[in-house]
Amino acid sequence: MPSEAVAKPPCVILCGPQMGENIGACARAMKNCGLSDLRLVDPRDGWPNPAANAMAAHAEDIVEAATVFETLEAAVADLSYTYATTARSRDQVKPVFTARGFAQDARARASDGQKIGLLFGREREGLWNSEISLASAMITVPLNPGNTSLNIGQAVLLVGYEWWTAGDLTPDVVLEASGAQPASHQMLDNFLNRLITDLDERSFLAIPEKRERMIRNVRNIFQRNDLTENEINTLHGIFSFLKGQGGPR
Amino acid sequence: MPSEAVAKPPCVILCGPQMGENIGACARAMKNCGLSDLRLVDPRDGWPNPAANAMAAHAEDIVEAATVFETLEAAVADLSYTYATTARSRDQVKPVFTARGFAQDARARASDGQKIGLLFGREREGLWNSEISLASAMITVPLNPGNTSLNIGQAVLLVGYEWWTAGDLTPDVVLEASGAQPASHQMLDNFLNRLITDLDERSFLAIPEKRERMIRNVRNIFQRNDLTENEINTLHGIFSFLKGQGGPR
Repeated sequence: MPSEAVAKPPCVILCGPQMGENIGACARAMKNCGLSDLRLVDPRDGWPNPAANAMAAHAEDIVEAATVFETLEAAVADLSYTYATTARSRDQVKPVFTARGFAQDARARASDGQKIGLLFGREREGLWNSEISLASAMITVPLNPGNTSLNIGQAVLLVGYEWWTAGDLTPDVVLEASGAQPASHQMLDNFLNRLITDLDERSFLAIPEKRERMIRNVRNIFQRNDLTENEINTLHGIFSFLKGQGGPR
Repeated sequence: MPSEAVAKPPCVILCGPQMGENIGACARAMKNCGLSDLRLVDPRDGWPNPAANAMAAHAEDIVEAATVFETLEAAVADLSYTYATTARSRDQVKPVFTARGFAQDARARASDGQKIGLLFGREREGLWNSEISLASAMITVPLNPGNTSLNIGQAVLLVGYEWWTAGDLTPDVVLEASGAQPASHQMLDNFLNRLITDLDERSFLAIPEKRERMIRNVRNIFQRNDLTENEINTLHGIFSFLKGQGGPR
């Protein structure tokens, strides 16, 4: 069984695409998402189409390698599972995935060696019902019911994005520190102790019953901040300067 | 504390947008994702801009309600947490969220009554570092490192899509049955028993040591299919017709 690492991304099949610009936009979105196999069924304006190349930005390779088929049946002949994208219910008894659900399902199939495909319809009309009946399942991207209309480049982007992120390990949030070291608790303590000593010297913390709470509040301002070593040093410099012990930096 | 139901969606702040078409595309993507508060900082071609309206499709209301600011400081003045979108590392010590991580964080903040904002940069250049330093955090959408370039309408769409789906309850997959009832196990059993009886009569299952396995295989073809009542009835009709017991339907 092939491993996840060699899972082949789904191919993208555009059924009856009209404007070359839209085909180029689809190629560009595919490249954003690690997809590369573009198939065109009966493109209205013939193929190749210079408008597609012009719009493809960094994805000219995908446009140039695109394959053309006369029928959808021929375009999907070598695939074992296909998902038809639709913006609305189509009165066909078939599983309907969200884009995220598709990505989970498709990753599992691709890891198992299956060749899978995504069907996108023509501008305005979408996929015909006869085309949807050729697919194994449907995908409807959940969007604001007040406006679910997407052009095909955007539809390819959202579905492709879910495919890409399902295989992406970027953590939900990290502190970008550009190589800077996070400060240790001891380094932060040294800074806070210096600050508190300074404040005590100038009687900022003179009211005993409020002192402990004030120190805790001041500590929390800095403690929750994920400070780097450089930033602690910057703060030391600022305090020295304010106290007349250092020059401008 | 306000409930999730009244969580205010983030506003979208475009810094130095150039082409009106791109502003319109952003408004359209916002509408797809349930966002409505569009703010423009120093739009190059002035405001209002007919090209934005023309591109906005179903989102003219967002374009018409957009507010214009001279500076980013003024545009974010009433917000308490802001996310700057960037395609690449920016050498600033700040949390970096994925688009999905942003959505979790922002939903929590919005549910807590915070007013939040999303910053998007100008075409080609993106956000300036001085603009990023005004934001609380950054968002970098994980994409294929081979092509991370998005136009601003696409960037608004991906980030907005994560905001929308974080509050969306659509199940990952359902069977679209258009009101049709799923068949009960008993209804499926009746059909399979009829089929097996027919096959036995014609000695299709005549080899005893293979019979049990063949029945199991045939059962699995239909059992895993999530058949509806109508589909079972259709299958009964087909079998009757093949046996010469029924007319065309």
